[in-house]
Amino acid sequence: MSSVITLTTDFGLHDGYVASIKGAILSVNPDAVLVDISHTIEPQFIEQAAFVLASAYHVFPPGTIHVVVVDPGVGTERRALAVKTSGACFVAPDNGVLTYVITRAMEEADFVTRGVSAGSSTELAIGDPVDAVNLTNRRYWRQAVSNTFHGRDVFAPVAAHLSLKVPLGDMGEAVKSITAFPIARFRTEPDGTLIGKIIYVDHFGNLITNITSRDLPKGTISVQTGNRTIAGLSRTYGEGEGLLALIGSDGRLEIAVHNGNAETYLKAHAGDEVRVKAVPEPVPAEPPPEDKTS
Amino acid sequence: MSSVITLTTDFGLHDGYVASIKGAILSVNPDAVLVDISHTIEPQFIEQAAFVLASAYHVFPPGTIHVVVVDPGVGTERRALAVKTSGACFVAPDNGVLTYVITRAMEEADFVTRGVSAGSSTELAIGDPVDAVNLTNRRYWRQAVSNTFHGRDVFAPVAAHLSLKVPLGDMGEAVKSITAFPIARFRTEPDGTLIGKIIYVDHFGNLITNITSRDLPKGTISVQTGNRTIAGLSRTYGEGEGLLALIGSDGRLEIAVHNGNAETYLKAHAGDEVRVKAVPEPVPAEPPPEDKTS
Amino acid sequence: MSSVITLTTDFGLHDGYVASIKGAILSVNPDAVLVDISHTIEPQFIEQAAFVLASAYHVFPPGTIHVVVVDPGVGTERRALAVKTSGACFVAPDNGVLTYVITRAMEEADFVTRGVSAGSSTELAIGDPVDAVNLTNRRYWRQAVSNTFHGRDVFAPVAAHLSLKVPLGDMGEAVKSITAFPIARFRTEPDGTLIGKIIYVDHFGNLITNITSRDLPKGTISVQTGNRTIAGLSRTYGEGEGLLALIGSDGRLEIAVHNGNAETYLKAHAGDEVRVKAVPEPVPAEPPPEDKTS
Repeated sequence: MSSVITLTTDFGLHDGYVASIKGAILSVNPDAVLVDISHTIEPQFIEQAAFVLASAYHVFPPGTIHVVVVDPGVGTERRALAVKTSGACFVAPDNGVLTYVITRAMEEADFVTRGVSAGSSTELAIGDPVDAVNLTNRRYWRQAVSNTFHGRDVFAPVAAHLSLKVPLGDMGEAVKSITAFPIARFRTEPDGTLIGKIIYVDHFGNLITNITSRDLPKGTISVQTGNRTIAGLSRTYGEGEGLLALIGSDGRLEIAVHNGNAETYLKAHAGDEVRVKAVPEPVPAEPPPEDKTS
Repeated sequence: MSSVITLTTDFGLHDGYVASIKGAILSVNPDAVLVDISHTIEPQFIEQAAFVLASAYHVFPPGTIHVVVVDPGVGTERRALAVKTSGACFVAPDNGVLTYVITRAMEEADFVTRGVSAGSSTELAIGDPVDAVNLTNRRYWRQAVSNTFHGRDVFAPVAAHLSLKVPLGDMGEAVKSITAFPIARFRTEPDGTLIGKIIYVDHFGNLITNITSRDLPKGTISVQTGNRTIAGLSRTYGEGEGLLALIGSDGRLEIAVHNGNAETYLKAHAGDEVRVKAVPEPVPAEPPPEDKTS
Repeated sequence: MSSVITLTTDFGLHDGYVASIKGAILSVNPDAVLVDISHTIEPQFIEQAAFVLASAYHVFPPGTIHVVVVDPGVGTERRALAVKTSGACFVAPDNGVLTYVITRAMEEADFVTRGVSAGSSTELAIGDPVDAVNLTNRRYWRQAVSNTFHGRDVFAPVAAHLSLKVPLGDMGEAVKSITAFPIARFRTEPDGTLIGKIIYVDHFGNLITNITSRDLPKGTISVQTGNRTIAGLSRTYGEGEGLLALIGSDGRLEIAVHNGNAETYLKAHAGDEVRVKAVPEPVPAEPPPEDKTS
């Protein structure tokens, strides 16, 4: 384990809640290095937290511990988890916030996870090299545990103890599956058109889709959303003048506006459909008929 | 002293002011561990800063130094303070921002502080085991001190020197009382009803009151605010469907909405009255009279 | 080099972008001390980033590394820079974000930089004791470099390697000038009136000008903006009742409202003109003529 601990919450930046989590961590491990990922996840928006976490966790040093506290079910029967992959460790409620990161860890280990059944929530089976435990060992919690703030009273001290090399298995009993939400995959039409959607809109108004660079057809493509079609991919945000499509820093197809905001320009939203087509190679034009009359 | 230093200000997150305070601290103690509590206190709102600080400081390691810079009187005759309690240290202007934390420290030491007189501000007498000094020793300030930014030029370097174990007494002369605001206490009606109020609304719209779990009558209670009455206490935010009352993570009675926002749902505000009544045990119902005519 | 690294970006606080930069730094130097200056620079607003950086960088320990990522030209031909002055180090795109800090460093070294030509952008010649390199040595970048996120893939690892004492010259080839924007200087009318402007409005609504305390005429002054004139300078924000002018913590003339917000009170904006006049010493009034008729 690294001593880096990241935090992703829906607590906002105004109250003392985020600081309370940090205080609880530093009370156990004064040498922990704390890094905020985001605290402005929309309240109780599990999918958003899952996406933001997935966009950043892989840049951290191996063994970094990522704490996620978007926890509408705090104090109810929902489980609390610590999950260890080959590259990182996660401490979070068992409500789907780890869907992207654990799916990716399992896929990297050649597990086939694409077949998760649709619906409002599902179970993601886990196995080597991913270990998960249900946090039940109160020895690693704060002495008094509230019913309303497990971020401070359970997740924070557990993360701190993990950063001190306490083995994952000491935190509770192993579990063989965790709660996930069905990841919205793009589909492919008979003519090869990819039909995906916008899954996240960032601070710049860039529209991030569920289609990655690996999914794109070879050759020139067109990208369509709403009633607008973008011909070809740009390499950077600084190319061209208006609307453009490009591969963003996380490998995903994005729609952006040069020095502008695609969200407001297109009145686009997360969930909107995005269609990608291969553009046929232009047939070499026949030479124009000679005009014999001139 | 710990080398953890927390910051609570009304500086917002946009300007370079918070970073200037951090730079000034790190210039004195490069090993200080800096933690933000909040920088979005409403400008000059001393009571709000006092509440947010009080909600988080007690989770930090013993000896943590808490710097508060909500300082409308900067550069005027208001004193600047460093205050040491058995568990923590505070560096702040003498304008009431330490009201909750020092009142609590004195009460824990069996001082009777409940009798502070009403009015717009008052003096809180202090004594063992709390020490306070008026910051007058310029040796521990930045070399050039502006009239407008003591956060950077006085509080930051003083906190940093305290974190390096410079004794509190070196920072200035001892003081025997500090400025406080009158804490709004609930009152009890002759019939036992508690009449308190909402003193803070958090990011989730939870309405936090000045009534704590220790104050509540035994047995079942009802909680009323505006024209709504809530029967009984929930254990968690995840219970029930709509409006609920529960004991929050700081031991205070809160009003919340399951997966929603009580502030907007009730159009409630800080200052609104909250009434708590004991609900009489239901009298065992008499069996209904037999209907002899049938 | 210090191991303190500051960050100034237009990434906002919601997405995982800032955390990605931090993760990339910690992956190279786990002991780096990370401090946020601001992440709420308006998207692509280079002058604002330059101002905020300039307001804070000088308070940090000598050798602190300041990373600025406001980078509308990411992935295009714009250069990426590391610049070392006698007191600090900067890592940023070559788009003008370093205008204030490098101008100041050159002026402190007695370079005459005031004559930069007007226009939308210009070149700032640099020389001893300032060194600058164009970041071209991919050895100090992340292994895979995106076209859209050099903050994570180039600036972060370069800053981290600099904090590990890798020499600046190893990062790329020396450059002799950097891109700057023309700094808006005040002008002086024949009658001595200074005509400057508001260049920044802070979180409190304080209106910060491009006139410094050193520029002011001796004696009493009046400060005019819009149709309001303020007589004399206050020493602090806490003096007087309404509108006031004072010298702020960065040595600049500011217009403020005691316990209020000058931006909303005056409906003022960055760019508005501010006029400063010397107020003539009052001529000792002649004694009123005796009224001989009475």
